[in-house]
Amino acid sequence: MKPKLIQGFSKLSRNEKLAWIKEKHGVSDRTLDLIESHLHPDPGLQTIYGEISENNISNFFLPLGLAPNFLIDGSIYTVPMVIEESSVVAAASHAAKFWAGLKGFRTEVTGMVKTGQVHFRWNGEPESLFNAFEKAKPHLLGSLKPFTGKMEKRGGGIRDMEIRVSGSGLPGMYQLFATFLTADAMGANFINTILEAIAERLTGVLQESGASGSAEVLMSILSNYTPECRVRCRVEGNTSVFDDIHSGMAGETFARRFKLAVDIAEQDPYRAVTHNKGILNGMDAVLMATGNDYRAVESCAHAYASRSGTYRSLSTVELDGKAFRFSLEVPIAVGTVGGLTGTHPLAAASLEILGHPTSETLMQVIASAGLANNFSAVRSLITSGIQSGHMKMHLGNILRQLNATGEEMALVYEHFRDRTVSHSEVSAFLERTRNSEQE
Amino acid sequence: MKPKLIQGFSKLSRNEKLAWIKEKHGVSDRTLDLIESHLHPDPGLQTIYGEISENNISNFFLPLGLAPNFLIDGSIYTVPMVIEESSVVAAASHAAKFWAGLKGFRTEVTGMVKTGQVHFRWNGEPESLFNAFEKAKPHLLGSLKPFTGKMEKRGGGIRDMEIRVSGSGLPGMYQLFATFLTADAMGANFINTILEAIAERLTGVLQESGASGSAEVLMSILSNYTPECRVRCRVEGNTSVFDDIHSGMAGETFARRFKLAVDIAEQDPYRAVTHNKGILNGMDAVLMATGNDYRAVESCAHAYASRSGTYRSLSTVELDGKAFRFSLEVPIAVGTVGGLTGTHPLAAASLEILGHPTSETLMQVIASAGLANNFSAVRSLITSGIQSGHMKMHLGNILRQLNATGEEMALVYEHFRDRTVSHSEVSAFLERTRNSEQE
Repeated sequence: MKPKLIQGFSKLSRNEKLAWIKEKHGVSDRTLDLIESHLHPDPGLQTIYGEISENNISNFFLPLGLAPNFLIDGSIYTVPMVIEESSVVAAASHAAKFWAGLKGFRTEVTGMVKTGQVHFRWNGEPESLFNAFEKAKPHLLGSLKPFTGKMEKRGGGIRDMEIRVSGSGLPGMYQLFATFLTADAMGANFINTILEAIAERLTGVLQESGASGSAEVLMSILSNYTPECRVRCRVEGNTSVFDDIHSGMAGETFARRFKLAVDIAEQDPYRAVTHNKGILNGMDAVLMATGNDYRAVESCAHAYASRSGTYRSLSTVELDGKAFRFSLEVPIAVGTVGGLTGTHPLAAASLEILGHPTSETLMQVIASAGLANNFSAVRSLITSGIQSGHMKMHLGNILRQLNATGEEMALVYEHFRDRTVSHSEVSAFLERTRNSEQE
Repeated sequence: MKPKLIQGFSKLSRNEKLAWIKEKHGVSDRTLDLIESHLHPDPGLQTIYGEISENNISNFFLPLGLAPNFLIDGSIYTVPMVIEESSVVAAASHAAKFWAGLKGFRTEVTGMVKTGQVHFRWNGEPESLFNAFEKAKPHLLGSLKPFTGKMEKRGGGIRDMEIRVSGSGLPGMYQLFATFLTADAMGANFINTILEAIAERLTGVLQESGASGSAEVLMSILSNYTPECRVRCRVEGNTSVFDDIHSGMAGETFARRFKLAVDIAEQDPYRAVTHNKGILNGMDAVLMATGNDYRAVESCAHAYASRSGTYRSLSTVELDGKAFRFSLEVPIAVGTVGGLTGTHPLAAASLEILGHPTSETLMQVIASAGLANNFSAVRSLITSGIQSGHMKMHLGNILRQLNATGEEMALVYEHFRDRTVSHSEVSAFLERTRNSEQE
């Protein structure tokens, strides 16, 4: 039996789409009203949101929060963060304030190089390909001027290109590996346009330069793996700065435990995955807030974390006597112009809050947010444990929803000290408390 | 000079926060009004959004889109997707419809096992630790019943636990490695609560079982690396199903090129990162729409992609004569109860659209969305190229914004066939066209 498919769904109006999911999936009127209520009241703004991606029926809300007091390379930033996970913004803020009282985050952008590849089969002798390419390269670069002129004015352009053999398992396959600078743009469209233009010209320029053979192009696309578009970020201080961080724990003990926790994440993939996830919590929240593509950064960061052959922590601790240094080194390819950065109204607002940063500055801010979240997470883990903070926040939210008084809150905190918190359990406990008070 | 920090920012009201960023960062009144305009008109709903994470000043809008016609294991789903990248929802929809006309997506959940660790230093002989743990295990499990009872009624609980040596670089360090089943919950709170309870009891139960030594606990936390919580997903057919997919390309040629593109992503990390990013585009959009934590899944998926020691494609192609099979195998730890799935109003709506799935079904849907997006991306790459589709969509959005007529659109498409598309360039071209018509 053939399944019944809907034809032309993308051409239905928003209301028609909603009517269809009501009929097809029994979605309730209440839910449809709820979906409707999330449209922006300004039709112009709603049109902009509606055109960001396809088949949209409404706007999904994520809280836009602010993490103040980020001292980064001598400047103070208030960092916009968009994230659905509780305690990420609070953790970033706490760590930022702690380190701002010292020297803050020190960062260094070690490169801004983006990458792309044209994959092709070479129908001819390898020598012929490599020899001709060296001759062809200036002609090829020259023929791309119509595509690169504007980017060159902004300080970007094609940096280099070379032919690489694709690997032992792929006989006859080669790649033109190209590197780019894309100024303050993330550069995906620029790079892909150039790579496709190269692909069109490849056989022609090679043959004009004496190659006997032809390039059968398979695909041309940027690589999100950009290990040379990287930022380093660190915080440092004497271990005595941790003396008051946790009652009953000396600063030196804290520093030693902190280093041990990060060392474990350098060796044990089960720990490294969660450790790096905590770094990306902070990074993704800023990426999202500024209209950047968090998936590109995630893929690249985790592949970079595995570059040694073992998946490891992206951050490291050096502890030399009393000198403590906590560092993060991670590739981050982002833009502050183009893409969604200008067209998404609140992404533009986030960039305004950050003072209209260059892409280099944004890399520094994102890395600092990542390191800040990592610091707070490891701090919790090695002191009071991750649950106490989470649960306190979770309980707080539930209690506010249930309009608990201060006295009730105290009873609830005491009761749930070693019990699992859930809305129903808290609600039931509170009801029992309230009933027993009435008796 | 000490930087000027703000104290007590989290305690400011939303309006006070906005007034502060105006003063501190010179944010314009226009931007503040814009931020304000994104609050939900219903105060109850706005309170819910405001409590999801901290220091929030507004809601960040992301389009909620629908990808219909997903035939997965015999059932038809309309998949809610939240994503800021254009063409992801369209790509998912196209691939879903294509494969629904055949047999759709076939999936298999190979496990649902979650993981957690208690890291500790053992102050004693290793044998004493291992011997005592075997004796202590039933007592330890028994003492955790108050925490596990409810989860056990839902079919979950602690699956097993063992002591592992932490690695050669970490002398004296061990871990209690525990596995869990968490039914339809993602299980983070459940797992962390149990691990912290284990940490409290560890030295006690070990000594009661005859150990001479003590466990100095460093940290206790779930691992987001869950290779045993995994789903396989595949589509398959005779290569003739691709005969009409691209003009001038036979189905067999398409299938051969498709396999080659995926094979390259299995060998070349530069390609694999982008390839897997395309898979995660689809997965993350569903994770976000259903209130799940995409960062946990991202970390785990990419670490899994690097498990061989080289970062590789998560998907594979088998081509045996004319039999084509495209498969994805990826760990996905998600929930359909608890966390944000119930409290985020539109996450709940997404789950209603999906028919209130179990977490197992949601894993199947997410993997299918990932494979669908991967199929569309590779299809574009090996046929017309990634830019033509992107640019067509990009141009379409710009033309709609500029209220272009059908005739103008045709002129613009022709003109920008091999030119880089930007809003300003299109706008300038359109203006020139319109002026020249008036002359």
